Amino acid sequence: MSFAGIGRLLVSCVDRPGIVAAISRFLDERGANIVHSDQHSTDPEGGAFFMRTEFRLDGLEERADEIEAAFGEEVGESFGMDWQIRYAARRKRVAVLVSRYDHCLAELLWRWRRGELYADIPLVVSNHADMESEAKRFGVRFEHVPVTRETKPAAERALLDLLGGAFDLVVLARYMQILSPTFLEAVRTPIINIHHSFLPAFAGANPYARAHERGVKIIGATAHYVTEDLDAGPIIEQDVERVTHRESIEALERAGADIERIVLLRAVRWHLEDRVLVHGNRTLVF
Amino acid sequence: MSFAGIGRLLVSCVDRPGIVAAISRFLDERGANIVHSDQHSTDPEGGAFFMRTEFRLDGLEERADEIEAAFGEEVGESFGMDWQIRYAARRKRVAVLVSRYDHCLAELLWRWRRGELYADIPLVVSNHADMESEAKRFGVRFEHVPVTRETKPAAERALLDLLGGAFDLVVLARYMQILSPTFLEAVRTPIINIHHSFLPAFAGANPYARAHERGVKIIGATAHYVTEDLDAGPIIEQDVERVTHRESIEALERAGADIERIVLLRAVRWHLEDRVLVHGNRTLVF
Amino acid sequence: MSFAGIGRLLVSCVDRPGIVAAISRFLDERGANIVHSDQHSTDPEGGAFFMRTEFRLDGLEERADEIEAAFGEEVGESFGMDWQIRYAARRKRVAVLVSRYDHCLAELLWRWRRGELYADIPLVVSNHADMESEAKRFGVRFEHVPVTRETKPAAERALLDLLGGAFDLVVLARYMQILSPTFLEAVRTPIINIHHSFLPAFAGANPYARAHERGVKIIGATAHYVTEDLDAGPIIEQDVERVTHRESIEALERAGADIERIVLLRAVRWHLEDRVLVHGNRTLVF
Amino acid sequence: MSFAGIGRLLVSCVDRPGIVAAISRFLDERGANIVHSDQHSTDPEGGAFFMRTEFRLDGLEERADEIEAAFGEEVGESFGMDWQIRYAARRKRVAVLVSRYDHCLAELLWRWRRGELYADIPLVVSNHADMESEAKRFGVRFEHVPVTRETKPAAERALLDLLGGAFDLVVLARYMQILSPTFLEAVRTPIINIHHSFLPAFAGANPYARAHERGVKIIGATAHYVTEDLDAGPIIEQDVERVTHRESIEALERAGADIERIVLLRAVRWHLEDRVLVHGNRTLVF
Repeated sequence: MSFAGIGRLLVSCVDRPGIVAAISRFLDERGANIVHSDQHSTDPEGGAFFMRTEFRLDGLEERADEIEAAFGEEVGESFGMDWQIRYAARRKRVAVLVSRYDHCLAELLWRWRRGELYADIPLVVSNHADMESEAKRFGVRFEHVPVTRETKPAAERALLDLLGGAFDLVVLARYMQILSPTFLEAVRTPIINIHHSFLPAFAGANPYARAHERGVKIIGATAHYVTEDLDAGPIIEQDVERVTHRESIEALERAGADIERIVLLRAVRWHLEDRVLVHGNRTLVF
Repeated sequence: MSFAGIGRLLVSCVDRPGIVAAISRFLDERGANIVHSDQHSTDPEGGAFFMRTEFRLDGLEERADEIEAAFGEEVGESFGMDWQIRYAARRKRVAVLVSRYDHCLAELLWRWRRGELYADIPLVVSNHADMESEAKRFGVRFEHVPVTRETKPAAERALLDLLGGAFDLVVLARYMQILSPTFLEAVRTPIINIHHSFLPAFAGANPYARAHERGVKIIGATAHYVTEDLDAGPIIEQDVERVTHRESIEALERAGADIERIVLLRAVRWHLEDRVLVHGNRTLVF
Repeated sequence: MSFAGIGRLLVSCVDRPGIVAAISRFLDERGANIVHSDQHSTDPEGGAFFMRTEFRLDGLEERADEIEAAFGEEVGESFGMDWQIRYAARRKRVAVLVSRYDHCLAELLWRWRRGELYADIPLVVSNHADMESEAKRFGVRFEHVPVTRETKPAAERALLDLLGGAFDLVVLARYMQILSPTFLEAVRTPIINIHHSFLPAFAGANPYARAHERGVKIIGATAHYVTEDLDAGPIIEQDVERVTHRESIEALERAGADIERIVLLRAVRWHLEDRVLVHGNRTLVF
Repeated sequence: MSFAGIGRLLVSCVDRPGIVAAISRFLDERGANIVHSDQHSTDPEGGAFFMRTEFRLDGLEERADEIEAAFGEEVGESFGMDWQIRYAARRKRVAVLVSRYDHCLAELLWRWRRGELYADIPLVVSNHADMESEAKRFGVRFEHVPVTRETKPAAERALLDLLGGAFDLVVLARYMQILSPTFLEAVRTPIINIHHSFLPAFAGANPYARAHERGVKIIGATAHYVTEDLDAGPIIEQDVERVTHRESIEALERAGADIERIVLLRAVRWHLEDRVLVHGNRTLVF
């Protein structure tokens, strides 16, 4: 499938009549065909309005500057919009951070090799050396940046050197280190994390042990954007699986790994497809 | 929630650029606010295009004739559209046909009483007398139209007298009689049936017994529009549930009843909300 | 299906070899046929052992005293067992407490009328009058016991007069009052509650509003035994449903109601079938 | 986890009282501890009885001959049982046949490397060369046995040379060749196949294209034992996923691949754990 000429217009503004008409008129006048469009309003009377419109326009990429300038002037300003156009053909650059568990990393790289993730993944970073061969067999550079309590500031500076400004997305594929607010502010890249529980249940460490102790009948996983509040960022995707009294903590971890890899995959895919809009601490997934 | 002023524009035509722009301009010029919109194209290059646009316009119902005439002239004709506007505030009239199982009928009537189905349900018809009290406790008229092999033509004429021209939807809530092509042609009303298997598996009679014999690990139910081809009409909704070797045929029937009632409910709800478009023998559920 | 002659032996003790053999020999010597048997051990080396054995023995009910005495002497004492025999033919007496939501009550009573819950349900109590007609149409006595902050002690005494000693199970089918420790100690009956979230997430009040605010992608319900710690008793069953950014709080409540009724039903059914064993703050569901 | 000393006794016979007692007495007399036990009867009055009992006995493997002889004499014969004892510590030898799709093979080998499949997998055979590197990176021998219409008999003889007598299980991980009755008779090894539909729907070729044409709202996959009747052997496991009108045939294939790999994995795992008993054309999964 070719992404040439595919644009994705993301809009948020105060809801009022005429938004859809203005956007579709603008696109139509330039010969663009709307391929898919989705919208959401928290309240038609002055609530927040969100829209994702996917369109096809031959030569879009060459006309990007002109189109963006015109959209801002003709539509964006008059509705007070936050807006951007994303170009589907421009592959996003993704870095993956991982510790010692392979399941999330392996799933991402395997999907990527199959062509199911439209992105470049040129870098895997880990605080352990275990995943080096896994990264390399997919042809991905691997960097080992160990972290201890003492070396954490230096390690985060090393991470920033590797990541800073060079990526469109960082994925924490079971990266078992907490990133400092300083790092989060400096990296200036969206970060998606996979948490191994159905948040907000069992936020923090050892969720499977605590799930076992509490005797829950479902376990789950949550993919969310990372914010300064640990495990409290906007949720992109969650899923769960039934368990019984029979499962040991280890069995919960195994079952959970299957959910983690698929939940993280979906979140990354949707992000790459520009489907996820953040509104406060919630997401809209179009 | 008030449905006053809510219109639902349903469109199908050959795909080509400009459709969305033309529709949204038309609505905007009349002061309508697009509340929700969804579209699908089987192929952007000359495939079939489908759209459902929900809009709000004060006084819509009073201006219906004028708006429909204008839409046909200004938009519909130039794109060669099949189109209709449905008025959310106009309650659809629904008749329910049932035999002896109560689960689908009870679910529908209970949801309706709770306000979860926006419709009028003035009539329940059955070939048995068992469900009379169930219908009546919800204040619904009950008609008993027995059917035997000999009386079937007369029974169908009696059904037609009850249903003909007076309803927007007929629901077969486990009505265990096959309706003749003659009846189907004469009734001129969409009919939704619930089949107790995940079609096309186990089409026809006794699906649970055949599922048990085949040793399947999932059972299901299918809601579909009725056509002359038995159990082969466009599928609106399906769902399934896991079973094991332990379940007897009776246990499969009990488990299946839970799926049937919820699958039928969803299909009826989506139909009432004008979400279901038929394309050949498939449905689009917007 | 007849339950005559069906016994359910529930056992817990320290795990060690020979338990199953001793039990099955005991039953075999009396001519009982083991119909189903399930067991669980937290650790084969000295962990906790649990077993539920369902057997059929003609005339079981008449020989209950003799068999129980013999089992205690021949098996129970030598293994230091906690054990009981439940007689499937003896219908448990169930009282249902409800406030103003009908969905859980309606589901329980409808299942009961269909024969899917083997129990007597002679009493519905509510702090509101709304559910009186619903109880009565199933032929169940309804008692209105209003509760205000001031009258709560008196109301709980009235509840105790209605319930005390007369029931095998009390079901809180969306009963929106917190029962005091005094009441819980006095009632001496297992109580099953339905909580409208996937505990431990959103314990306490208004879970749907908090789920909406947090932006979760799944909502759920939890049936648990009531203990003095609010919403912290042993979990019997949980289930969930996917939601999106589109659902308002009210839509979450509607979707949640569907999960609540089915989760509560399963928990009550399993309790009536003597399938639920409590171990600390966890349950085993055999 | 150590499997030393773990035995799995599989039994089928006509149901009658005393079976469980006889088996548990036999095991107890030899000092075995029953770790888990499950049973099923199609009818307590003369139906078919099935049982899987997992027990632990120090030195089991050394005493295997003696124990099997004694069991046959003391228990098996008197109840007319079909029975076997499987020794968990003896790794089953598994060969995987595959064509060009990698998802099922990759999942099996990855799980195996993680220790989630207790087996030896020394051989992958394919009628294409594509999967050679995938097999080899897990250290597994790869054999390329091309098949054309003309060479099929010779190819099957080559397959028999590779497989005959040397394996406990053959897995068809999207092997797109129909095996002849001659081959199936000669190979004398259980064969598990993954079919890419929720059988019996869409048996035969191109199930996703036919699912798309029929407009189903769920797709699925089925793992079954291979018999001479194509796609009609005993079903071990099935699972499904919801789809909508939006998915193209290719999207159905991608979504289906996710179900296929997990359904096949579960079936293989259960087979390796001796959990699957075949009864006529159905399976019991204990």
